[in-house]
Amino acid sequence: MVEVTTDPTLLERPIEVRSGVSGIERPLALLDAVRENAEPLLNLANRHVVSARQFDRETLVQLSRLAADMERQPTLLHQPLSGKIMITAFYEPSTRTRLSFESAWHRLGGDVISITDPLTTGIAKGESLRDVAEMFSSYGDLVVLRDNSEGAIYETLNGLRIPIINAGNGIDEHPTQALADLYAIFKWRPDLATASPKEKVRIGIIGTPARMRTVRSLLILLSMISHAIEEVVVINHDDDLFDDGQREELEASGLNLNTESNLASVLPDLDIVYINSIAWVGDTFERLTGDLRLTADSPLKEGAIVLHPLARGPELDVTLDSTPHNWYFAQARGAVFIRMALLTCITSRISQVVDVPLPAATVNEKTQTQ
Amino acid sequence: MVEVTTDPTLLERPIEVRSGVSGIERPLALLDAVRENAEPLLNLANRHVVSARQFDRETLVQLSRLAADMERQPTLLHQPLSGKIMITAFYEPSTRTRLSFESAWHRLGGDVISITDPLTTGIAKGESLRDVAEMFSSYGDLVVLRDNSEGAIYETLNGLRIPIINAGNGIDEHPTQALADLYAIFKWRPDLATASPKEKVRIGIIGTPARMRTVRSLLILLSMISHAIEEVVVINHDDDLFDDGQREELEASGLNLNTESNLASVLPDLDIVYINSIAWVGDTFERLTGDLRLTADSPLKEGAIVLHPLARGPELDVTLDSTPHNWYFAQARGAVFIRMALLTCITSRISQVVDVPLPAATVNEKTQTQ
Amino acid sequence: MVEVTTDPTLLERPIEVRSGVSGIERPLALLDAVRENAEPLLNLANRHVVSARQFDRETLVQLSRLAADMERQPTLLHQPLSGKIMITAFYEPSTRTRLSFESAWHRLGGDVISITDPLTTGIAKGESLRDVAEMFSSYGDLVVLRDNSEGAIYETLNGLRIPIINAGNGIDEHPTQALADLYAIFKWRPDLATASPKEKVRIGIIGTPARMRTVRSLLILLSMISHAIEEVVVINHDDDLFDDGQREELEASGLNLNTESNLASVLPDLDIVYINSIAWVGDTFERLTGDLRLTADSPLKEGAIVLHPLARGPELDVTLDSTPHNWYFAQARGAVFIRMALLTCITSRISQVVDVPLPAATVNEKTQTQ
Repeated sequence: MVEVTTDPTLLERPIEVRSGVSGIERPLALLDAVRENAEPLLNLANRHVVSARQFDRETLVQLSRLAADMERQPTLLHQPLSGKIMITAFYEPSTRTRLSFESAWHRLGGDVISITDPLTTGIAKGESLRDVAEMFSSYGDLVVLRDNSEGAIYETLNGLRIPIINAGNGIDEHPTQALADLYAIFKWRPDLATASPKEKVRIGIIGTPARMRTVRSLLILLSMISHAIEEVVVINHDDDLFDDGQREELEASGLNLNTESNLASVLPDLDIVYINSIAWVGDTFERLTGDLRLTADSPLKEGAIVLHPLARGPELDVTLDSTPHNWYFAQARGAVFIRMALLTCITSRISQVVDVPLPAATVNEKTQTQ
Repeated sequence: MVEVTTDPTLLERPIEVRSGVSGIERPLALLDAVRENAEPLLNLANRHVVSARQFDRETLVQLSRLAADMERQPTLLHQPLSGKIMITAFYEPSTRTRLSFESAWHRLGGDVISITDPLTTGIAKGESLRDVAEMFSSYGDLVVLRDNSEGAIYETLNGLRIPIINAGNGIDEHPTQALADLYAIFKWRPDLATASPKEKVRIGIIGTPARMRTVRSLLILLSMISHAIEEVVVINHDDDLFDDGQREELEASGLNLNTESNLASVLPDLDIVYINSIAWVGDTFERLTGDLRLTADSPLKEGAIVLHPLARGPELDVTLDSTPHNWYFAQARGAVFIRMALLTCITSRISQVVDVPLPAATVNEKTQTQ
Repeated sequence: MVEVTTDPTLLERPIEVRSGVSGIERPLALLDAVRENAEPLLNLANRHVVSARQFDRETLVQLSRLAADMERQPTLLHQPLSGKIMITAFYEPSTRTRLSFESAWHRLGGDVISITDPLTTGIAKGESLRDVAEMFSSYGDLVVLRDNSEGAIYETLNGLRIPIINAGNGIDEHPTQALADLYAIFKWRPDLATASPKEKVRIGIIGTPARMRTVRSLLILLSMISHAIEEVVVINHDDDLFDDGQREELEASGLNLNTESNLASVLPDLDIVYINSIAWVGDTFERLTGDLRLTADSPLKEGAIVLHPLARGPELDVTLDSTPHNWYFAQARGAVFIRMALLTCITSRISQVVDVPLPAATVNEKTQTQ
């Protein structure tokens, strides 16, 4: 017998289109706080995005600003990527990131070709990544790659004539996830995106920087806004939290980096709490944060926000969903817009969505040819 | 050695684009028989579609009319869903229904993101349906879900800020298949879509209402046009044809419902014969109708039509394909148009495809703001 | 520890969009050499493409010319397939061909529905190919099918009301791959596309015509330009290189066909060397060319070109990639454009991309109805 327990009114009432996500009204504040500067965005044209190291503060700020502009006005007047093809090659189980990229590309008017199963590809026939790269270059305008090896993207990149975006390479990096994290932070406190933040923030990161690509990339981005950060506390039981040289690189950039194993003792002082528990190992994953866990009863500071790259496990309790600390849904929602912003820049379509002041030389050329 | 036995002229002759499907010219008759009334269609805006119970007679009739309008003129002047994203999440083997939905959405100008393999999704990581719903809400404009559990769609629905359509939830329901069934019936006999049918019809349903989601949903829709139905005979050998309360609910709505195990004895009296033999159980299926079978030699009434949700097995013999009883191909073809009609309404784009008389209040508002 | 050995400047420098592919500037030469004649292209409207036998010399030449026109100007002004749906049904492992077709269709403005996993389809439920064909006809405008059986496409074709393209049927044929091969040859030596080639060419084919579908289809196309070919040498160790009647059919068309097992002895005389080593057998493949192998050290004639359908194995050494003999990347790149040309013709959209002189009769009709 079919038993479906449900509230019948669920089906009767129209869906509230805008609800349930903290911070959904914040893009405007970010737009107000930051002055538009298209130059760093123009420099992204026709570039690969493999590592968070490739960004700098002004680029991060302007990308976030552009994302906010898009989030405020999700229905674009133009379809800047009309006729353009994105190839999403996800050689590791994933839906969330693929959907986010494909959604962003479609919103910009482009078409998508997906490769979701490595067994159906030429790779299974023993094809080299160099040859796969040649194939991508012939059939698409941009590639998004996820692979469980750290090196595959660098090997692929060698043969590419089109840009590639790293959507997770083993335990190394996941730079666009970090962009989404930072975009959520900037929406929450737009002053952190400026040269003179009102007040520095304390950030806690529950996780293992050496083994989690999302944490690795985020720390690199945070090191680029170290002037806005009082300290970053990495919270975990593990002793080997950092990879060789990782901590040194971050500290050299001015980041005040500490570690802590007692979550409860440090939580009340944190403005931002980022939590993640899994690390990918080949085709499977391991949980690295033991019993560390956030719930509605955790001693979070008033006004503090919680971020999580999702999908989540027991480390992030659903009781937090309905609290104002829940910024992880806003973070997920914003991921589409920051990717739209990035994709627009990489495909050299930035001039179709914002007013780009032409460089002087170009203006002259224009004048002469008219 | 390659042996390919084929008629060489097959490859020489141009394809006849319109042939082989009974009733392909019928949409016009339905358009003539029914007067346009956009109001019930406007009420579908921004609604979930989970159960056949959510419809009523006038909505069914107007949806079918809109579908007929689209089938008559398949090349739309507008692309009402341009820039809109449908997510098709099919967590159970299926191609036919997914293709039908994706075709309908594309015909309306929209883009599609597909999830066809549950193993590649966050669900495999133990993600909750509530979180998946949040993801869908951030990355798409509408979700179509097929799942082998009855309850998953209700759980998903709780977290959604965008509409969801049930494309089959276990053995419970498959409401849009039932819409396609009814649309075929209305095209065949447009008077059945009116308040005063010329003659009531006898409908036979070969199958098991308790175990087949397509039959369950169809019976609910038929109960909404009971004024046009002399009787519905459920034909099968089984004793447990109905779920608890299922028969009572249908009869309470005025449907004259009978059962019969001898197909040959009842067949000559039936105007419409609906046949299905499989029911889904987890990831596999079972055949429930034993030796019950329709062929060109079956004692079908002259002018009677045969419907089948497809894919078919031996229960529906191919000898019937070339007879005028074959309306199952028309039914399959019409499935795209009824889904186009439904999707247009749910996404609030109905005003872009038909002349919608504005409600008086709205007219006033409009006047004032101009 | 993450170890990623890479040249850091890789990430800093903008991508050179046009590089690394020999012959990328050649389309113009082909356009100059051949006079436009739309008539054979008009005859392709609404036709299936199953066997290379369906083409003739003038059609091949004009298709290649149209492809060159598209390759020269990849950004189309029109989107001739806007609103049209291609269904790609790949029931055998493949990415390269699917991507090429999907890319071509998207470039023309159309939408794509993919079926990549046979287990998720109605076929898995025991559905007949006739019924699958009916489904394709209802939900798409064109089907591309790859199947490991030789006969499935002919069975499917029987039920279709829309065109189907053979993207590989077992060991039988792969006609659009052969079109891509020929297009590469015509770009390299446009005079071969004319009635009076400057000089005939010697072509070597390393492979097994009886077992390799790409070779089978290519030989058929080559037999249509036998006036431009001095000889075709099939090179392999095997004794059973040809299928029953295969050699006779080719020779009857005027092709001078020889066989050779010593690669080194024949290589210095060849203008075109086509190499392939695998043949599909069910869901797997076998290597058929033993130790036959091309490298940068092979005694290739100066100016000779090497073609390969890709993906490659050890038979085609990467040392050849950076030599002028490498035309296999140009061949792969051109595959998109020849498919765009073919798809435009089959979908009757040729008049939207070239000036089509109306046949006299049609002009009269037009005049009369105006």
